[in-house]
This record gives sequence, structure tokens and C-alpha cells, in this order.
Amino acid sequence: MPIRAAVFDVFGTVVDWRGSLIREGQALQSATGIEADWAALADAWRAGYVPAMARVRSGELGWTRIDDLHRMILESLLPRFGLQSLSEAQRADFNRAWHRLDPWPDAVAGLARLKARMPIATLSNGNVSLLLAMARRAGLPWDLIFSAETFRHYKPDPEVYLGAARLLDLQPQQVMMVACHPSDLRAAAACGLRTALVQRPLEHGPGGPVAPWQQGEFDIVAGDFLDLARRLA
Amino acid sequence: MPIRAAVFDVFGTVVDWRGSLIREGQALQSATGIEADWAALADAWRAGYVPAMARVRSGELGWTRIDDLHRMILESLLPRFGLQSLSEAQRADFNRAWHRLDPWPDAVAGLARLKARMPIATLSNGNVSLLLAMARRAGLPWDLIFSAETFRHYKPDPEVYLGAARLLDLQPQQVMMVACHPSDLRAAAACGLRTALVQRPLEHGPGGPVAPWQQGEFDIVAGDFLDLARRLA
Repeated sequence: MPIRAAVFDVFGTVVDWRGSLIREGQALQSATGIEADWAALADAWRAGYVPAMARVRSGELGWTRIDDLHRMILESLLPRFGLQSLSEAQRADFNRAWHRLDPWPDAVAGLARLKARMPIATLSNGNVSLLLAMARRAGLPWDLIFSAETFRHYKPDPEVYLGAARLLDLQPQQVMMVACHPSDLRAAAACGLRTALVQRPLEHGPGGPVAPWQQGEFDIVAGDFLDLARRLA
Repeated sequence: MPIRAAVFDVFGTVVDWRGSLIREGQALQSATGIEADWAALADAWRAGYVPAMARVRSGELGWTRIDDLHRMILESLLPRFGLQSLSEAQRADFNRAWHRLDPWPDAVAGLARLKARMPIATLSNGNVSLLLAMARRAGLPWDLIFSAETFRHYKPDPEVYLGAARLLDLQPQQVMMVACHPSDLRAAAACGLRTALVQRPLEHGPGGPVAPWQQGEFDIVAGDFLDLARRLA
């Protein structure tokens, strides 16, 4: 069955959240004079993300957008990083750093090539307004923005993967999930989607951890989006 | 309060459904030799649309996509227009004529200018896959595709207008609804959205009916999308 659409994880797969958050932290340092270990803050902020979503997925928290989860996590980290003196406006703007993440160098060109062949859509836990702001700033040429917010379920809940196929009016087997995280691809495959792993060895910084996977586990393994476009040509 | 996003009705406002359906009917005639009054069929097909949605809005029918409503209406019209001999494949393809509607001549250029100023999104009763196919074929540069299907409510239900503002993370007053149909704009205004009427005097063909409206009823009245872009500059 031919692939008729590609849907993309965003944080880590399309954009370099860690490098971008460090850049944003350094800009905040220049503006305020507050020094902090911005790389450690980026890692801790991101590490709070899965547990925060788990509270929504379990029903402990009602539906809560990533913008609001990011803010809750940030608040919890401020004392540890010596950032309690930030004003409300500074905290709100720093939280919007997640709207200003930079794409990996191959992302925009690779997406443009893929878009010439088939529809391309986000399938991200980021909220719609976050993904919209990011796309406009970075020039990401999405045909569609699908978000956990569209389905009121976070990945890896099956409602997200199956909801995207339904809105595309395609069978799950006609949709390819693209991600750098094996866990996301495994959940997509369990719903019947095809899978492409795009390797992002620098997601967690030079020498950072990379989640293990097995040869043959995914339909495609690509080095970057340009490689992926070649393999889907 | 400044306008931060524009959302667009599509059928009639962005695309010329009537002229496009006549073109599709003529192509079907060339392929099959079946002659019919394609203009009258286009008008009757479109006339079945509001009553069909009303059956969904009232709860008589469960959630049903426009593709499927269009097909139900088409089936009901085949005898009257002498089209009963069409095969299943021909009927399915003719139904997808609604995916292949042509934009008004100013639409693509006007949307590109508006997109440079603010996010632009559909807010249409068309289903997501229909709006996606139309956008890719016609080159409509949407930032976002919002559909009745996103909200499982048809316009003019308030859930559609308020749902778009919510996903944009904006107040209704920061969102401008653009449509050629006064009824759509009145429903949007009742939800707090700003309104722009774009006049499409040829929607129902030369000399066709145009719904009445009053001076001062809408925030903007524009001749076409280029005029709208100038007024929002």
C-alpha cells in the first residue's frame, strides 16, 4: 500500500529544542545579568515533560496544553537554577522559547522536497498555537498542523495516531510517522502506521544519550530529512 | 484590540464552487457522452448542502463529513439529471469535484499578502482531507486548516468559531472571520469575532442572488482578497 502522507514528531525530530533553549537562556542572561547553567536547565525542563503529560494521560490533570505544562515545569525549576527574581513577563516570555525553537539544518529543505511528493503534517504534543508560531518563524512548510490538542490526547495514546489517519481520510498503513524517538514510532506502528526513524544524535547534546532500537524495527532509517526525501522518492 | 489572525470561509469565498462544478460536469460529459444541465446540477447540489448539515446539527444524523453529505445529495439528484448510468467509480470521482474547486482569481495572491501580516486559516464546513486536497491543487498557502470536522460541529454553531479562537490561543476579538456570506459573519460576530465581508457577486453565476446586508454591519467590506489585504495593511 503506497504511502500517501507523512506526519512528523516535532521536538527533537524537526527542531533542536536543547540548542535553542540554551540560546534563549543566554539571551535572558544578557538581558538580566542572571547567570545560570542553561544547558542543565534545558535538560531538566525537557525531562519534566513526559511526567507532566503522564498526569494528563492518566486523568490526574484535566486537558492541559503543553504551553501550560511547560510553564508549570519552569516554575518548579526556578529555585534550583536561581531564577526566582524573573518577573511574570520574563517568565511568560521565556516559556515561549518553545515557540522559537530552531529547525535542524536539513529540516526546511527536506520538508519542502517531501511536500512536493505528499502532504506533510505535524503530529506533535505541542499545542496548535505553539506549532503555528514555530512554523511561521522557522519557515516550516506544513500542509497541516495536527496536535495532541486537536485530539485532546497526548502521544503515545493511540487516539493521536488514529485521529491523524482519520482526518487525512487514509488507512493507517498509508500514513508514515517520522520521528527520532523509537518509542513514538513503536506506538505509531501499533496503530498500523508506517515508520521512519530520522537519527538526531545531537538531540541531547554532544555525547548525549540516544534511545536504543533494533535493525529492521522501522520501515525506513534515515540520516536526516534530505535522506528521508531521497528514500521516499 | 489588534487583529492577530484571519480565518476564512472557503466555498464561495475562496473558491468558485459553481463554475468549477460546471467545468467538472462538462469533463464528465466529454468522457461519458452523458449530457446534462450542469449549471442546474451545481445549483441543486449546493442547495442540498444546508439542509444536509441541518440534519447533523439537529442530531438527526450523527457526525457526517461533507464528503459523505455531498455524496448523499448527489445520489438523490442523479435521476432528475439523467445520471443514473454513472458507475460507482464515476460517482465517487465526480463527488471529489469538491476537492478540485478553483480559487477566485485574486485568492492566492491575496492570501499570500495577508499571510505575510498574520496567520491565515480556513474555517470551513469542508472536511480536512477535502480542504487539504484543494489547497495542494490550487496553491492556497494556509498556515492552518480548521474544519467543522476539527470541532465536530458545523457552522454556524458557535463551537466552530470559538474553537478556532481557542486553538489559536487568541481572544475572539483578535480573530477576523472572512466570508462572502452575511449569515456566517453574523454567527461569528455573535461569538465576538471581527468580521470582513468579501463580495463575490458571481458566486451563484451572472445575475444570481446575493444575500442582503446592511451598511455598518461588518468591520470591513472588501471587493476581493487584494482589497482586504490593503485594508488590513
